[in-house]
Amino acid sequence: MERTLKLTIAYDGTEFHGFQRQANAVTIQQVLEERLAKIFGHPVKVTGAGRTDAGVHAYGQVVSLKTTGSIPTDRVAVAARSVLPDAIVVTAAEEAPAGFNARYAAKSKIYLYRLHSGDAPDPFLRNYAWHMAETPDAAAMDAAARLVVGRHDFSAFRAAGGAPVNPVRTILDASCRRDGRLTEFSFWGTGFLYHMVRNLVGTLVDVGFGRLSADDFAAILASRDRKKAGITAPPQGLYLKEVLY
Amino acid sequence: MERTLKLTIAYDGTEFHGFQRQANAVTIQQVLEERLAKIFGHPVKVTGAGRTDAGVHAYGQVVSLKTTGSIPTDRVAVAARSVLPDAIVVTAAEEAPAGFNARYAAKSKIYLYRLHSGDAPDPFLRNYAWHMAETPDAAAMDAAARLVVGRHDFSAFRAAGGAPVNPVRTILDASCRRDGRLTEFSFWGTGFLYHMVRNLVGTLVDVGFGRLSADDFAAILASRDRKKAGITAPPQGLYLKEVLY
Repeated sequence: MERTLKLTIAYDGTEFHGFQRQANAVTIQQVLEERLAKIFGHPVKVTGAGRTDAGVHAYGQVVSLKTTGSIPTDRVAVAARSVLPDAIVVTAAEEAPAGFNARYAAKSKIYLYRLHSGDAPDPFLRNYAWHMAETPDAAAMDAAARLVVGRHDFSAFRAAGGAPVNPVRTILDASCRRDGRLTEFSFWGTGFLYHMVRNLVGTLVDVGFGRLSADDFAAILASRDRKKAGITAPPQGLYLKEVLY
Repeated sequence: MERTLKLTIAYDGTEFHGFQRQANAVTIQQVLEERLAKIFGHPVKVTGAGRTDAGVHAYGQVVSLKTTGSIPTDRVAVAARSVLPDAIVVTAAEEAPAGFNARYAAKSKIYLYRLHSGDAPDPFLRNYAWHMAETPDAAAMDAAARLVVGRHDFSAFRAAGGAPVNPVRTILDASCRRDGRLTEFSFWGTGFLYHMVRNLVGTLVDVGFGRLSADDFAAILASRDRKKAGITAPPQGLYLKEVLY
């Protein structure tokens, strides 16, 4: 009998070329499909809720798949540990209604972005945060981040040269807080454009260092002009924290 | 004019075959010598205070080297960042008296060992802690760890088949404490046998799970018999925290 499963996956994206399958590069999707086939006993195709780029991490990526295999659902997470590399962990597995698609059924997602500041870079954070020598002002970045909450045309923060998609997205919450040398952004939204979080962070850091005011930031958002915004923050600070259904 | 320098180094040991130079494998020492030659303008030889194995990390390894190069001492740490891989960071550089040898001058060292417990392994800690599904009793392990403080024959915790060295070492402090899912051991001693910390931890975990009592642990130490002690804890939980002079 065919079951549809919903798996929650955490992964360290450092050594992978992103989530989505591609030729000549090892991706999370490819590893999941190849390795999970061993526990289901047949080839599997997984659909991820969100695509993450090379070097981007996940605490709570969600994938859906169909199986006719006999392994009980409550054994999947433990069995997956024996076939997956340590960098990819199935943290939960549950049966979903027939036709459940992790991508299309997702109602919203939460992304985190981490900065690390300090004179010397920390070798243990090199793959897990964006290092900067000075500490940006978290309160100023928090105030500016909150300006993106709501329904906006995010053309100013979309990837240059990206496919022509509707640039309007709804952000439910956005914030920034600092804990010692770590500064963390959180963005909760019903959808995100390609590179949107990294482009927002790259521009918010300009606010944190006083190069832009919150009003400047609001004007950039309103301009819908990618050229007015800041750089694309590097991938290693980004985490897909949670997918909500 | 020749100067002797003392450098403090932090490194993520995951991708290296330990500190000490060896044929056909990339080591911390080799990378330091090859890359630092570029900032000093001549070949350099570094002497490390402690040898760390493959996968073992350091917050505060110390190395000494001699240079006739012209780079000011206070520029060494920053210049080193441009030539070293991100996994190895020079956190401090200072001039030392002629003849200073980081290994022989060291008075004591502090090592940390980290355990992570939880049903699911954490992909972000796979290279930085020893994962176990259950949480060992930190108070029991702390009490047992304190039994090694003092001057003892540590033959029960030396590497099997190691070179015949004097097995007597002095431990100044030893402790264990838990913070949520992380449990951390600290060992401060004037010297350590090869694999001694990892062998101590492998046996202390037996105490933490109630397989051995503190009295059993004391008896193992007194037996000087490696076969009576526990396993060698895996390398990725071990950190050379500090070298004291």
